[in-house]
Amino acid sequence: MAGNSFGQLFKITTFGESHGEAIGVIIDGCPSQLPIDLDFIQAELDKRKPGQSKITTQRKESDTVKILSGVFEGKTTGTPIAMIIPNEDQRSKDYSHNTDVFRPSHADYTYHTKYGIRDHRGGGRSSARETAARVAAGAVAKLMLKAYGIEVFAHVSSVGKIDAPNVDITNADAFIEQREQNIVRCVDPATAEEMISFIDGVRKQGDTVGGKVSCYITNCPVGLGEPVFDKLHADLGKAMLSINAVHGFEYGSGFSGAEMLGSEHNDRFIHDAEGNVKTLTNFSGGIQGGISNGMPIEFKVAFKPVATIMQNQPTINAAGEAAEIQGKGRHDPCVVPRAVPIVEAMAALVIADHFLRNKTVIL
Amino acid sequence: MAGNSFGQLFKITTFGESHGEAIGVIIDGCPSQLPIDLDFIQAELDKRKPGQSKITTQRKESDTVKILSGVFEGKTTGTPIAMIIPNEDQRSKDYSHNTDVFRPSHADYTYHTKYGIRDHRGGGRSSARETAARVAAGAVAKLMLKAYGIEVFAHVSSVGKIDAPNVDITNADAFIEQREQNIVRCVDPATAEEMISFIDGVRKQGDTVGGKVSCYITNCPVGLGEPVFDKLHADLGKAMLSINAVHGFEYGSGFSGAEMLGSEHNDRFIHDAEGNVKTLTNFSGGIQGGISNGMPIEFKVAFKPVATIMQNQPTINAAGEAAEIQGKGRHDPCVVPRAVPIVEAMAALVIADHFLRNKTVIL
Amino acid sequence: MAGNSFGQLFKITTFGESHGEAIGVIIDGCPSQLPIDLDFIQAELDKRKPGQSKITTQRKESDTVKILSGVFEGKTTGTPIAMIIPNEDQRSKDYSHNTDVFRPSHADYTYHTKYGIRDHRGGGRSSARETAARVAAGAVAKLMLKAYGIEVFAHVSSVGKIDAPNVDITNADAFIEQREQNIVRCVDPATAEEMISFIDGVRKQGDTVGGKVSCYITNCPVGLGEPVFDKLHADLGKAMLSINAVHGFEYGSGFSGAEMLGSEHNDRFIHDAEGNVKTLTNFSGGIQGGISNGMPIEFKVAFKPVATIMQNQPTINAAGEAAEIQGKGRHDPCVVPRAVPIVEAMAALVIADHFLRNKTVIL
Amino acid sequence: MAGNSFGQLFKITTFGESHGEAIGVIIDGCPSQLPIDLDFIQAELDKRKPGQSKITTQRKESDTVKILSGVFEGKTTGTPIAMIIPNEDQRSKDYSHNTDVFRPSHADYTYHTKYGIRDHRGGGRSSARETAARVAAGAVAKLMLKAYGIEVFAHVSSVGKIDAPNVDITNADAFIEQREQNIVRCVDPATAEEMISFIDGVRKQGDTVGGKVSCYITNCPVGLGEPVFDKLHADLGKAMLSINAVHGFEYGSGFSGAEMLGSEHNDRFIHDAEGNVKTLTNFSGGIQGGISNGMPIEFKVAFKPVATIMQNQPTINAAGEAAEIQGKGRHDPCVVPRAVPIVEAMAALVIADHFLRNKTVIL
Repeated sequence: MAGNSFGQLFKITTFGESHGEAIGVIIDGCPSQLPIDLDFIQAELDKRKPGQSKITTQRKESDTVKILSGVFEGKTTGTPIAMIIPNEDQRSKDYSHNTDVFRPSHADYTYHTKYGIRDHRGGGRSSARETAARVAAGAVAKLMLKAYGIEVFAHVSSVGKIDAPNVDITNADAFIEQREQNIVRCVDPATAEEMISFIDGVRKQGDTVGGKVSCYITNCPVGLGEPVFDKLHADLGKAMLSINAVHGFEYGSGFSGAEMLGSEHNDRFIHDAEGNVKTLTNFSGGIQGGISNGMPIEFKVAFKPVATIMQNQPTINAAGEAAEIQGKGRHDPCVVPRAVPIVEAMAALVIADHFLRNKTVIL
Repeated sequence: MAGNSFGQLFKITTFGESHGEAIGVIIDGCPSQLPIDLDFIQAELDKRKPGQSKITTQRKESDTVKILSGVFEGKTTGTPIAMIIPNEDQRSKDYSHNTDVFRPSHADYTYHTKYGIRDHRGGGRSSARETAARVAAGAVAKLMLKAYGIEVFAHVSSVGKIDAPNVDITNADAFIEQREQNIVRCVDPATAEEMISFIDGVRKQGDTVGGKVSCYITNCPVGLGEPVFDKLHADLGKAMLSINAVHGFEYGSGFSGAEMLGSEHNDRFIHDAEGNVKTLTNFSGGIQGGISNGMPIEFKVAFKPVATIMQNQPTINAAGEAAEIQGKGRHDPCVVPRAVPIVEAMAALVIADHFLRNKTVIL
Repeated sequence: MAGNSFGQLFKITTFGESHGEAIGVIIDGCPSQLPIDLDFIQAELDKRKPGQSKITTQRKESDTVKILSGVFEGKTTGTPIAMIIPNEDQRSKDYSHNTDVFRPSHADYTYHTKYGIRDHRGGGRSSARETAARVAAGAVAKLMLKAYGIEVFAHVSSVGKIDAPNVDITNADAFIEQREQNIVRCVDPATAEEMISFIDGVRKQGDTVGGKVSCYITNCPVGLGEPVFDKLHADLGKAMLSINAVHGFEYGSGFSGAEMLGSEHNDRFIHDAEGNVKTLTNFSGGIQGGISNGMPIEFKVAFKPVATIMQNQPTINAAGEAAEIQGKGRHDPCVVPRAVPIVEAMAALVIADHFLRNKTVIL
Repeated sequence: MAGNSFGQLFKITTFGESHGEAIGVIIDGCPSQLPIDLDFIQAELDKRKPGQSKITTQRKESDTVKILSGVFEGKTTGTPIAMIIPNEDQRSKDYSHNTDVFRPSHADYTYHTKYGIRDHRGGGRSSARETAARVAAGAVAKLMLKAYGIEVFAHVSSVGKIDAPNVDITNADAFIEQREQNIVRCVDPATAEEMISFIDGVRKQGDTVGGKVSCYITNCPVGLGEPVFDKLHADLGKAMLSINAVHGFEYGSGFSGAEMLGSEHNDRFIHDAEGNVKTLTNFSGGIQGGISNGMPIEFKVAFKPVATIMQNQPTINAAGEAAEIQGKGRHDPCVVPRAVPIVEAMAALVIADHFLRNKTVIL
């Protein structure tokens, strides 16, 4: 109810502030007997952690995950899986100059007003650090989905006005391997180079820039999604919009579909060589009537530029007086490279949840 | 869990198929002592009902709502409010030719596969008719919000590639009055004329076209929205994406924000003449850190073209054989004029829910 | 949240007041393709309806149920099942003398204070009439359970200080047939006669008396119940305590178990002739660690005497003045004969819900 | 859904196994700005911890609680409060002899069957150790309730067949102080002495015995509880029945109410000297129609004898063969003295939850 849980049957609850003792997550509802590969979970976290390259924040945190419960002799037991990630580099002095002022386009003012109290050492609960807990939980969801052959993978498809061309999504492993070749996590090498160079220029100006992440889910069975409110794309949309800095979500034809004619947009059903039902086009983005149709699920997420810039900005303080926010600290010039594992994690959590929900339907 | 409920404290559950006895909704959690204006609820439904003009479906249904419970001597009692809308014009023979085939880009195939059974008289539960129940519930939510001065209003901002200019949102009543002057529900008269003419042309070709609805919420108090998963825009996004035919959602700067620099995008805090905290710009769309900041909430919703076109289309049937779907029946050439009250209803439900949720927070 | 829903996966929401248009229920989450026997549902309602015999209220209502949605060609479709029962005999003049006074041990005072408004024509939402909606939903749950061989059955085991002896529970059909031979619904004929005679005497004095219902669930698979909070008996207990007039719940050894030694109370595991795991005794009531163990589930429910008596009683009114409540109207001298189908319905709803929840657990 | 959460608005999720790294709890929904007294939380845990006296288990654990999040400078921030209690004395060799066998009247067999995997080092998740997490969360709930003047307190009212007389509940602090004078936690000193002597005798025989806990909630405002399913006593009942070893729950007149006449049982309304509405008697146990009526809330909980006895017992193993369980380890001869803080904690959680839920009702 207070907004810290996500999912119905594969349900997570995250906790922790950026500058407290630890952040963490409880997964309640993960099936029993699932083998847990702790190295895989850690590797997912490593893709999100700060300090990875010149185009991410220079903060250094190891983001080491520890499992407290729910796993016995390497397998899930059906009981809640608790994972914590201790906070290490809590250099809160970096933030002490901002104790009293409301940073523009941050959550300082809204938290202060809503709760009447605010952990001013960084973003507190509103910090993107909270998403590390999601990545840990999403890694467990991925392990479950992989056991059923379902793949979830994403890459950076835009930075500023630089867009990647369409990419091949037939092989998830090849996609991910190719993506990890560059620090911006764009599958297309030429575009990646252009993006990196652009972000580096933005960084040097003490500025930030937005971008987009495209995500794909393949080998998903027909039938996931619950009409009428919990349509699969509605839950994916909510999951994505709950990630810090996300301002837009579209699936299949998306916003451009609003400009099309029905005769162009309808996806014609066919049987493929193996006798499976497919569609010739995929403007539906793998989802019809809110339910997966067996085609690849495709969606795109828009991230605004990070609000913390290395430039001084006028603002007001809690007393309502004019103040200036100083451009200090260590932040990301562009959030999308580190957002890729977060998008994947949230997508995996949605699919895992609907996978379990779908198993309960038919008598 | 089965997806027919929405909201946490102001919670609705809808039921009913397009060709059954009735559709309806239960509102559980509406505060007691709220005066209920049945005429207002009916007027909202009338904006969604079929047969309104030449650019909507020619089906005629009165969509008359009846309250079964929860209201005593004109006021809510705090008990569940049940409302039903009988189905009148169930001309299911219009659909009998489609019993066995899967209509392209409809939910026929996915429902058939998920449930193993399907009410083939029209869309059954997947029909947009279900949204009438949402409009009735949303009207009650609007009544509650109006009691607190909060306004929710929307209009058609795009049809195909025709976009309306920015419009004045300072006066909700004037906005709505202006919008209701034309059948396409666009506040800008010149654009409205262009849209109507375009839709009429599409209709004559037996085709359909998509469009966009822009929605505004004004006078919303600071503090609505629950971090971290139930951010206000995440719940608005899910609400919108749960509406039939919606393929995209963005708020504030939206997708264009992904192309901006942080130094451009940050909304500078100021005090206005009355000493209230405002921002100079509103790229945040009235929401920061998932919590309303007192500025107008602004978002846009993209609708794909209606899948039912008056042209014959190749498809397959349940037995997996090639078949042809015939272009018969009475359907909308463009869904967005009738979608305006649905978008408003879902937005009102989200705000009502978060309004109640917010009242529980501070000790 | 507002308390009108029950269950997680097999979820019901009831609505309606005793003197409004209708009462009803939505079942959300019933599996698709379940054959629905409307006669069975009606027969269950008939066991609860008023006016059955001299020891129940003389109000006459047919309690005719109507299905509005979710069933197509005799089978469930996986969409919400809406059922309504119109209110017929709303002789509210019987109650008009009580408009302003708080009836002792009724919900008048608490509703009035909580909601600030109250439907004073009878109990409104607090009326036991609401349980008719539960019985209709419970009948659908029973149909689902029967498809898996699970039986739910109950009888009146005590009226006042008259207790029935232990009864044979090996054959559910025989049990029910025997029980329906008498108007008090006690399986033991001699006890039944004694109970009926006692209730009739109480009725003649214008008084009421309490009693107990014992309920059994047989052929229940091992594994139903979710530790740690949603233990099967915890959900059964909540279900029973949510029925009007219930003041106590115990399962297995119950309150007498609190007086026993562990060496007496432990249920020894054995294999029966077919190689199934059984226990020699069943002090655990078929549930261990909150999870069904395959033995018969056994519990008992205590009902207080009906508060409405045909005697004048001193009380106070809404203005806080002394008043007198008059002993008029038509009420039950003893509620337990009509409570039997309600207890069964709520038990069936709990088991159906946990049956679906259990199917999601193992990978 | 998987049963590890309790509450709607003041919601807890517990995690952890008896022999894992740690157990813990997340509280989601605690209002902001509540002062947190860590010493009070620890003192509550100390009342539950093992090794307190000769009549409790001799295991020694300090059960030291640590807050990981949600508290800043001594006050709650409105974000999730995570608390962990590391497991210290995990002497799992004590249990190694039981790896393969199903202990009678434990959850071994049901967990094994439900999950297909079981942490056999003690009870795993089914261990009463999990209730320590509840006590920690309940202590926070108590702090919130105390801020509103609401008191929750309990004592041991029966051990075996030894019953305490009625006790004075007008002063919560005096009640608790008196109760803590003896190791069995019964307010009546003479009864306490008898109980202690009886339990000690049982312990010497290697046996265990059941008992009852009576709980009181005073100064509770009118209006808590949500009809029709979430009646206050229904949620209290579920809370109590979710505690390990509980087999029965009754409130107000309870099971004995089932033997009474309506004319005896009705609680007559009066105004007291201060003009407050009271009832002359309190057979309703402070709750009418599921809603608190301002009188003291009174209920009783029955605990079966602990299943682990220090005697050898015949049983079967996972392979289905006859086996013997050995009477080793360190367990409680009678659970009720340590159950008192657990009963209080769960009661406090229910009241805190309904307190917040009630604040949302009236417009």
